[in-house]
Amino acid sequence: MDKVLMAEVNISEGTNIDLVNEVKEALLSVDSIEVIDIDSNGDHNRTVFTYKGNPELVLEATKRLAKKAIELIDMTKHKGQHPRMGAVDVVPFIPVKNYTTEEAVEIAKRFGKFLGELGVPVYYYEDAQEKEYRKSLPKIRKGQYEALEEKMKDEKWQPDEGPKDFNAKSGATVTGARFPLVAFNINLETDNLEIGKKIVKSVRAATGGFTYIRAIALKLEDKNQVQVSMNMVNYEKTPIHGVYETIKSEANRYNVHIHDTELVGPVPLYALRDVLDFYIKISNTFSMDQIYS
Amino acid sequence: MDKVLMAEVNISEGTNIDLVNEVKEALLSVDSIEVIDIDSNGDHNRTVFTYKGNPELVLEATKRLAKKAIELIDMTKHKGQHPRMGAVDVVPFIPVKNYTTEEAVEIAKRFGKFLGELGVPVYYYEDAQEKEYRKSLPKIRKGQYEALEEKMKDEKWQPDEGPKDFNAKSGATVTGARFPLVAFNINLETDNLEIGKKIVKSVRAATGGFTYIRAIALKLEDKNQVQVSMNMVNYEKTPIHGVYETIKSEANRYNVHIHDTELVGPVPLYALRDVLDFYIKISNTFSMDQIYS
Repeated sequence: MDKVLMAEVNISEGTNIDLVNEVKEALLSVDSIEVIDIDSNGDHNRTVFTYKGNPELVLEATKRLAKKAIELIDMTKHKGQHPRMGAVDVVPFIPVKNYTTEEAVEIAKRFGKFLGELGVPVYYYEDAQEKEYRKSLPKIRKGQYEALEEKMKDEKWQPDEGPKDFNAKSGATVTGARFPLVAFNINLETDNLEIGKKIVKSVRAATGGFTYIRAIALKLEDKNQVQVSMNMVNYEKTPIHGVYETIKSEANRYNVHIHDTELVGPVPLYALRDVLDFYIKISNTFSMDQIYS
Repeated sequence: MDKVLMAEVNISEGTNIDLVNEVKEALLSVDSIEVIDIDSNGDHNRTVFTYKGNPELVLEATKRLAKKAIELIDMTKHKGQHPRMGAVDVVPFIPVKNYTTEEAVEIAKRFGKFLGELGVPVYYYEDAQEKEYRKSLPKIRKGQYEALEEKMKDEKWQPDEGPKDFNAKSGATVTGARFPLVAFNINLETDNLEIGKKIVKSVRAATGGFTYIRAIALKLEDKNQVQVSMNMVNYEKTPIHGVYETIKSEANRYNVHIHDTELVGPVPLYALRDVLDFYIKISNTFSMDQIYS
């Protein structure tokens, strides 16, 4: 069975097209990698490369991409709205098919060692990090690039790979493995943000809702609608249909209908399995591998 | 945008594994072809090769596969339960992505000419055939291999390509283009076949149901259930959710529930779009291209 791993590489350059293209060419120098998305954001001054393929090839492509980005990007000159601490800022490896999170962690660690040998301090996060206090990306990146030199002097914030001293040009990189994310928004036929906030409370983990849902309510000014914007961080354990049906019935309490929904960015095929199970009772003998495109 | 064409090649050999493997090797001699399924059936004495890829490469792979099958299979010795008239029996080309039925018809005709030059009589069917009376596969194949020699003497049944005379070893081949098929079964919590037959009447084209549904009711003896077994021949115009909801409500009339459903064989990703639209109101801005696996 073919194994598929995805990588989502965030680099700190989103305005210099020539530079982004050079980095892209380094990525494409590995055959058989399927590029899903390359998204440069000028305000963030950041580009996200999303691609997938055979895990060993994805690792090789990520090494080449990262080496080129570290060569070309000078963090001493970087400005942008998005939080960041390095030229190659964050690199999650995401198991897609016939691959475990544990295997993805191993790839992340091989990538981390490679970067360390290039002289870049590396922090592991999420499942690749054993120390609880430094598992989350926001905690590792707190203070951003500007605070990194001081932070690294703290014993608690010694990097997992690479030099123990600050590297001004590259900054530091965070890498690890995580489950594929689903970004799911539900637009409600109301302009009452309070209703949206009450509904959010019923679904998000922090307020007693579903364990794997992060959610906020926001107003879509141009549409007179309120949106429940969600990150589903484990669609297997907290599936799409459950969240949809819960929001539908909670909204009904306020006589509000769902107008429509949005799946944003790349969506793993396997996240749709439960929609087929729940709504059209697809039998257990069905395999998502039967689906082609 | 990458174009994807699928081919489903039915050859008249399903018991001689060595022979099937030789034919498979001819197929695999073309790089970058993705094999979806190879299904040999001993009772039918027939093998179906399903694969997809770049249309020109699919054509080339199909030529090589067909040439090898024609070289190895002798129809004068063929026995099997499935209707057939040739060593390479039926070859539909199926547009999958960024490809039109018209373009698929053109590929089918280039394949037909190739077979004709090899000395095999070829009939076009479905969208590749202009004469109404010989558009359908069952009509072309009526009488099967055994009746072919006589049939070809009739002016109405002269082949579209190749020799006008019977070729005893190869028989004749039918090729053309068709929309991707979805095989969808709905299992009902009843052992009453009459109820199944009434429900079938409400959905199948021949009895006033949906235009693109062919359906039969049959008893699943081992499960005490009745199955509505369907071929959906155009999932865009007659979508999955409409058929499911209609059968659900018709069954309800007889106090029968749907137990589960089956999607059989390869399922085109795009056939799932309407399930997302109908059940979770996915917005028009969503593209199935966002889905990865």
